[in-house]
Amino acid sequence: MPQLLHGERAAARKGLTSDVPVAWDGDGIEFIDQRALPREFVVLKARNVDDVVEAIATLAVRGAPAIGVFGAYGCALAARGLRGTELGQAFARIREARPTAVNLAWAIDRVRARADGDYLSEARAIHDEQIAIDRLIGESGIELFPSSGNVLTHCNTGPLATAGGGTALGAIVAAYRSGKSIAVFASETRPLLQGARLTMYELGQAGVPATLIVDGAAAITMRQKDIKLVIVGADRIARNGDVANKIGTYAHAIAAAHHGIPFYVAAPRSTFDFSLASGDAIPIEERHADEVRVAAGDSVYNPAFDVTPGRLVTAFVTEYGVIRPPYFESIPDLETRPDFLAAKRH
Amino acid sequence: MPQLLHGERAAARKGLTSDVPVAWDGDGIEFIDQRALPREFVVLKARNVDDVVEAIATLAVRGAPAIGVFGAYGCALAARGLRGTELGQAFARIREARPTAVNLAWAIDRVRARADGDYLSEARAIHDEQIAIDRLIGESGIELFPSSGNVLTHCNTGPLATAGGGTALGAIVAAYRSGKSIAVFASETRPLLQGARLTMYELGQAGVPATLIVDGAAAITMRQKDIKLVIVGADRIARNGDVANKIGTYAHAIAAAHHGIPFYVAAPRSTFDFSLASGDAIPIEERHADEVRVAAGDSVYNPAFDVTPGRLVTAFVTEYGVIRPPYFESIPDLETRPDFLAAKRH
Repeated sequence: MPQLLHGERAAARKGLTSDVPVAWDGDGIEFIDQRALPREFVVLKARNVDDVVEAIATLAVRGAPAIGVFGAYGCALAARGLRGTELGQAFARIREARPTAVNLAWAIDRVRARADGDYLSEARAIHDEQIAIDRLIGESGIELFPSSGNVLTHCNTGPLATAGGGTALGAIVAAYRSGKSIAVFASETRPLLQGARLTMYELGQAGVPATLIVDGAAAITMRQKDIKLVIVGADRIARNGDVANKIGTYAHAIAAAHHGIPFYVAAPRSTFDFSLASGDAIPIEERHADEVRVAAGDSVYNPAFDVTPGRLVTAFVTEYGVIRPPYFESIPDLETRPDFLAAKRH
Repeated sequence: MPQLLHGERAAARKGLTSDVPVAWDGDGIEFIDQRALPREFVVLKARNVDDVVEAIATLAVRGAPAIGVFGAYGCALAARGLRGTELGQAFARIREARPTAVNLAWAIDRVRARADGDYLSEARAIHDEQIAIDRLIGESGIELFPSSGNVLTHCNTGPLATAGGGTALGAIVAAYRSGKSIAVFASETRPLLQGARLTMYELGQAGVPATLIVDGAAAITMRQKDIKLVIVGADRIARNGDVANKIGTYAHAIAAAHHGIPFYVAAPRSTFDFSLASGDAIPIEERHADEVRVAAGDSVYNPAFDVTPGRLVTAFVTEYGVIRPPYFESIPDLETRPDFLAAKRH
C-alpha cells in the first residue's frame, strides 16, 4: 500500500505546478491520488514496486504521459533494492501494469536501455523532457486563441494527465497567462467524468474561469455561448490527421464544423503514429459495461475512444509549432524534423 | 405520502401496456414510481391532492403527457372530497406542481371547464385520447423504418412519459411488432439518465433489442454501427420546424446530418406551437448545477433542453401522418386539419 502523506509534505504538493502530480523525493515517488479528486486532495508515496504497480493499475495515476513518467521513476525505485533477474522481472511488472498505455512501455524500455544503469537520471530526463515538450506545446498554442472569448475542451489534458504542464489544457492556461481573457466550457466526459473531476479541478487551480457542461450540451453551448474554438488532446494520430481520442471527441468535432468553429488537437510528436496511413487501422478499445449501465444485464456499447477524421481538424498544436493542412504533406514533414531534445540526453 | 401497493395489485401493473404507468382504480390513482426504476418496480397509489402534488413535484410521475393525464385524474380525486373554493384551490395546486410542463396546465384547464362537473369522465377522455394519438403516431412511423437495421434514440418517449404507447419509442415498438428486425441504440441522456433508466427498461419490457451508449458515443455509433435513422420526441415545435427537446438532441441531429442519416421527430399535434415563428423564441430552461457538478462550488451551465433547427429534421411523425418539408407549408397545413377526436368528446 502506498504511504499516505500528511502535513507540510502533502501541502507542498498543492497548487499544481508541473512537478507536482508525480515527483521523486529521494526514497520513493510522491503522487496525487487522482481517484480521490476533486473531493479530497490526497498525496501518496510509492515505496516499492508493488506500490508502483498498484497505483497504475487502480488509476491512482492516469493519463498516458503521466503513467510513463511514473513508471520510469518506478524503475529507478526498483533498482535500489533489486539486481539481475529480479530487477528484470520488476521492470516487466511495471511495464504491464496497464497494457493499453503506449507511453508506459516506451518509458520502461528507454530506462532499461540506459547503458550505465543510472535509471534515476533517465527517469528524470523523461520527466524533464515531458515538461519541456508541454511548455512548448502551450507556447505554440497561444497564437490560436482570441484576445477574449469562450473556448471548449473535453476530457482531461492537464498536469494530472502528463506530469508536465499538459497539452490542450496547457495551451489554454498558457493563453490565459499571456493576458488573453479566456473562459472555458469543459464537457464532463462520460462515463468516467475526467472533465468534471479533473479538468474543472485543474482549471480552478490555474485560476482560469471554467464552466462544466454535460457532453450532450456541447453543441448548444457552441451556439448559445459563442464558442471561439474547441481544443482537445489525442491518444494517437495517423499520417492523414485522423485522431483517436476520448469518446465524445468526434461528436464535438462534427458540431464545431457545423458551427464553423475551429477544432484544434494539441499533442506531442510522440502521439503521431507515422506508420499509420489513416485512423481506420486504429483499434477502438471497448471497456466494461458496468461503467455505463444502470440496470444489471443491460447490453452496452462502451468504446473508450473514437476517431475524428483529419478533415475536421483545423490544426495540430505540437512542440514543433502549429501543423496545418494539407496533412499528407505537413505530418510527414513533422516526422523528419530534428529531435531538439536529443542533444540534452546522456 | 402515496400508498405502496403490494402483491397482485402491483403485479397487475407489470408488463407496460398503455394503461399501466397511470391508472384510475376507483378511489385513487395508481402509478409507477419512475424514481425507483430500473432498480425496483414500485407501484404507488395517490389517495388525495397532497399525494398527487408530491408525485408530480418529486418526478415520481414525469413526462409531459403523463403528467397531464395524472393531473387530470388528480382533479377527479380532489372533486370527491372538496367543493367550491377548496376545490378551486386544489385544482390550482395540482396545476402548479410543475410549472414548466405545458400539458399539465392544459389538462387541468380542460377538466375544470367540464360543464356538468363529471371530472372523472373528462380525465378518462384525456387519457383515452392520449392512448389513441400515441397509437396513430406509432402506426404513422412504421413506414419510415427499414425492414432491418439499427436505429438510435435519445431520452425517454415511451409509455412512462406519455401514459399512452409513447411517441418516438411507440413508433419503434410499432415498427418492431410489424415484423421489422430493428435493434435500438439508446443514449443515456445526462444528467438525469432517462435513456439509461427508463428507455432501456421500456424497450426490455417490449422485447425490442436495445444497447445503451453514453451521449458522447452517439456520433461514433452512427458510423460504426450503421445507424439507419435517429428518432426522438419533442417538447415544443415551432412553425418552421425548430424543435425544443431534451438536452443532447441537437448534437445528435448535427451528427445525423453529417452522416447522411434521417433524423425524425415524433410528437402529437398538441406539441406544435403554431404561434411561434421559430425556435429562437423558445426559452431554454436551465436546471440546478447539482444535477451535473462533482465538486461543490463549480460553475455549471445546465440547460434542460436544446433547440434543433427544422432544416436538420427529415420529417415529423404525428397522429396525422408524416409531415415533410417544406415546413413553412406543411406545419401550417397541420394546424388546419380537422380534430378527428372532437367528435368523441362530450
